Amino acid sequence: MSTNRLIYLPLGGAGEIGMNTYVYGYGPEDRERLIVVDLGVTFPDMDTAPGVDVIMADVSWLEERADRIEAIFITHAHEDHIGALGHLWPKLKKRVYARRFTAAIGRLKFDEAGLPTDVIHTVEARPAVVEAGPFRVQFVPVAHSIPESAALIIDTPAGRILHSGDFKLDPSPIVGEGWNEALFREIAAETPVKALMCDSTNVFSPLPGRSEATLADPIHGLIANAGGLVVATTFASNVARLKTLAEAGRAAGRSVCLLGRAMQRMVKVAQETGVLTDFPPIIPSEHATEVSRQNLMLIVTGSQGERRAATAQLSRGKYLGLELKEGDTFLFSSKTIPGNERGVLRIMNSFSEMGVDVVDDTGGRYHVSGHANRPDLEQMHEIVKPQMLIPMHGEHRHLREHVKLGEQRGIPGEIVTNGMMVDLSGDAPEVVEYIETGRLYLDGSVLIGAMDGVVRDRIRLALNGHAMVNVILDENDDPLGEAWVELSGLPEVGKRGQGLADLMETELTEFLETAPAKVMRDDDKMDEAIRRVVRQVAVEEIGKKPEVTVVVSRLATE
Amino acid sequence: MSTNRLIYLPLGGAGEIGMNTYVYGYGPEDRERLIVVDLGVTFPDMDTAPGVDVIMADVSWLEERADRIEAIFITHAHEDHIGALGHLWPKLKKRVYARRFTAAIGRLKFDEAGLPTDVIHTVEARPAVVEAGPFRVQFVPVAHSIPESAALIIDTPAGRILHSGDFKLDPSPIVGEGWNEALFREIAAETPVKALMCDSTNVFSPLPGRSEATLADPIHGLIANAGGLVVATTFASNVARLKTLAEAGRAAGRSVCLLGRAMQRMVKVAQETGVLTDFPPIIPSEHATEVSRQNLMLIVTGSQGERRAATAQLSRGKYLGLELKEGDTFLFSSKTIPGNERGVLRIMNSFSEMGVDVVDDTGGRYHVSGHANRPDLEQMHEIVKPQMLIPMHGEHRHLREHVKLGEQRGIPGEIVTNGMMVDLSGDAPEVVEYIETGRLYLDGSVLIGAMDGVVRDRIRLALNGHAMVNVILDENDDPLGEAWVELSGLPEVGKRGQGLADLMETELTEFLETAPAKVMRDDDKMDEAIRRVVRQVAVEEIGKKPEVTVVVSRLATE
Repeated sequence: MSTNRLIYLPLGGAGEIGMNTYVYGYGPEDRERLIVVDLGVTFPDMDTAPGVDVIMADVSWLEERADRIEAIFITHAHEDHIGALGHLWPKLKKRVYARRFTAAIGRLKFDEAGLPTDVIHTVEARPAVVEAGPFRVQFVPVAHSIPESAALIIDTPAGRILHSGDFKLDPSPIVGEGWNEALFREIAAETPVKALMCDSTNVFSPLPGRSEATLADPIHGLIANAGGLVVATTFASNVARLKTLAEAGRAAGRSVCLLGRAMQRMVKVAQETGVLTDFPPIIPSEHATEVSRQNLMLIVTGSQGERRAATAQLSRGKYLGLELKEGDTFLFSSKTIPGNERGVLRIMNSFSEMGVDVVDDTGGRYHVSGHANRPDLEQMHEIVKPQMLIPMHGEHRHLREHVKLGEQRGIPGEIVTNGMMVDLSGDAPEVVEYIETGRLYLDGSVLIGAMDGVVRDRIRLALNGHAMVNVILDENDDPLGEAWVELSGLPEVGKRGQGLADLMETELTEFLETAPAKVMRDDDKMDEAIRRVVRQVAVEEIGKKPEVTVVVSRLATE
Repeated sequence: MSTNRLIYLPLGGAGEIGMNTYVYGYGPEDRERLIVVDLGVTFPDMDTAPGVDVIMADVSWLEERADRIEAIFITHAHEDHIGALGHLWPKLKKRVYARRFTAAIGRLKFDEAGLPTDVIHTVEARPAVVEAGPFRVQFVPVAHSIPESAALIIDTPAGRILHSGDFKLDPSPIVGEGWNEALFREIAAETPVKALMCDSTNVFSPLPGRSEATLADPIHGLIANAGGLVVATTFASNVARLKTLAEAGRAAGRSVCLLGRAMQRMVKVAQETGVLTDFPPIIPSEHATEVSRQNLMLIVTGSQGERRAATAQLSRGKYLGLELKEGDTFLFSSKTIPGNERGVLRIMNSFSEMGVDVVDDTGGRYHVSGHANRPDLEQMHEIVKPQMLIPMHGEHRHLREHVKLGEQRGIPGEIVTNGMMVDLSGDAPEVVEYIETGRLYLDGSVLIGAMDGVVRDRIRLALNGHAMVNVILDENDDPLGEAWVELSGLPEVGKRGQGLADLMETELTEFLETAPAKVMRDDDKMDEAIRRVVRQVAVEEIGKKPEVTVVVSRLATE
């Protein structure tokens, strides 16, 4: 009997949507050789991570075992799969494998970050194989909302794993390879699939997914009938959508211009890597103002309401000399990701104020999802016939529903969330260990831990405001001058109509005059007492308890 | 020719959803007698108003003209129509009129706030008339998602206005009066309607609205088939829904218990005012733990994910001795208001982790809206046949769409947003003035202006963190001791691996040693220079520019 085992350990993306980070291992317990699949980010919000740039999985567990890692595989170039590669690679320093388009995007990121681009290796699709220790990995083309998305066949001595990546069953995705049922049947027939790790994003969508190709007619119709300037936004990486939009613009006799660096870059990379061959001609943005508005179409970044992207800029007024007005049309060929609603609605209302006709995804005419819906997932289960189903890419409720769905056709499943290490060697997945996981925040230029308290303090400052108290004591612990209070994020005047800082200073001065010596000479006691005085005044005057920072300076004779 | 005019001035609710506040005036220019319709609140979010409790319209314009106000009318008891009454009434101090249920809710609020409850007068429905200066006002029962919602007939010497309030065309709303088409035809036949001020919330919903009564069967079916404990949440004020839920629970042989003060209060007031006559018996929450889970149904507050409400409490574990587990069912009989999605999803996932089956509004089986949909609005236009249509209760895009909808059947409309005063005396609305409007924030116990800078500072603290610098100078402007830096919401260590505060202190000490005397003796120059040093270190070390507070203490010889 072999003592080797096959393990699966999600560090991100299982129990949440975003920051996909998965680990597979094979070998003797605690000496397994490891591969990493995807290193993605997720995006912060003001409620939980104000000021943070992006969020990624804490990979301490991997870092401590870097000598056991064979390679890193990236399924596709969406930020929630590749976005952390540049930030986390310096901790792991292993070879990275991806398909041509994904690798090109990765190298651009590495180049900008000053990292070595030659560690990123381009892999051809199956039947090409990457050997990585005990793993033999093949990239299987799948349709998604970005070019060259891939499922991974991960062959191990303990059996075949199919890691779906993000996918949909789209036979005509406009750009790149369509859904190839025969190929997946072949993969399952070739070697039985021990475990299917499967995208769960759309498990709650009851109808079969629609093809990217179904959008061409409605989009062409909309643009053909539009009067003034036409602007459309979608995800920059949805190159197929960009193509449909641009073709519709050209068909309506409009010059097409791409606004937004991310979008221009995606099209450029897609063309350079050969995945996009017949994109309509586009005009440079500096020429856009020379075209009459009824002959112009802009395709712009910022479908999620990002403050600095072109959509938001246009909603605030003139941008690159272009300005929307009465009679123009703005198409959101996108869905709004939960959490971004308010920002997107704010922009739609700004356009409405300009007299612009805003067309969004209501009714589903101008956008389709890039993920397999519930019946599509059932079809995938049926084709692959895995021995076990382990849902990924989903919040807990998605994973739970997906397991139920699999069980309906007799496929045993397991909800495996971030930090759960499961042994796949036997007939059913077995949880063998719980790894401490967490999140890293890129905050400015440094990575901080989500639990470091930095962000918690920021949230408290935002909710409660900040009072800073300054007290100077002489060598006898007597106050030199009066207490000084500075307030941030607090009302200047309280309910008695007097300055809040003044009232605090008065109360503190009285406290300092009467405080016993044992308090005055003890920094901790001083801190506590001053904090209490400040908060008491605040509660009485403004009904809030601010954060308080106390600085007691003790001047010694020099 | 009369010099009197009829004016309409929204101060809140027109160009946004929430904080409804409308003014009508009649009389000579700038001496019009005024009435106020609704004084509502809207709710803050972390992105724009961290730490704020509720938001309401700035009523300075009204306050300055308080002697011209005849009365305040409240259409119904939703917070976005009545929520600011207790906060703003002390600025206006006028008689308040509302129907029985609404008035009772208002008096409870006044009682808690220590305001005189006898200023709130109960009005019977039409044909009862309130005379308020030149205005004759009638309350017309309409169906909505709270008992006794009313449209207002506002008769003036310049003609009849119909102010719709929130309404839907529901012939069987379970609690209270249903949609009465004949009544509205009668109103229009009696006196031509000069202007219809109309709810626009659901103008983008293409299908006719569904009746509250359509929910009974699906909800009964769901609960009859549920195994373990059943919990349902909806808006506390949706008394009809509470009744449907409670009846379904009883029909399934379950004891029903209401959790959450707001919900208990709504049912109590509805019963006391006679609008709710046959609510099923409920058990007190302290007895709920004595009932076996398959015989218990909880109806709880917190459908929007409010942190302190029962739903969120249950998602975090045991609450009042009750705990959800595998096999229980949790029904969200509600829709999620934009901006609350992340919080609600977080709760759903917590329930999923407990093994609870979460049922939400997907598919629309368990919730209906309380607002008139697009075809319903068209029906209202057709019945009322107003001379002009002025949409309200909506973001700009809703108002714009609603004007278009009216124009399709030949009713001229005007988009009138907060602060636009229009003269309705002529055949079409004419904009006569733009009033400076804004928002007031209830922040703890004080009202602050949205533009006071308090909240802006909090947002900056949350995004950038805070550095406080303390420098003490002697009478010769020489430093006494070293600079002292305290950080909040910033990483402790920068990219060089050294303490960030230490590095700043070192740089500041060097600066203090070398700064020219003309800087050292000038507070403004010192402040600016110190700020620059701190920010420079921060940018180098952590890639962020924190907020900086500088305190320079100058010790004079005493």
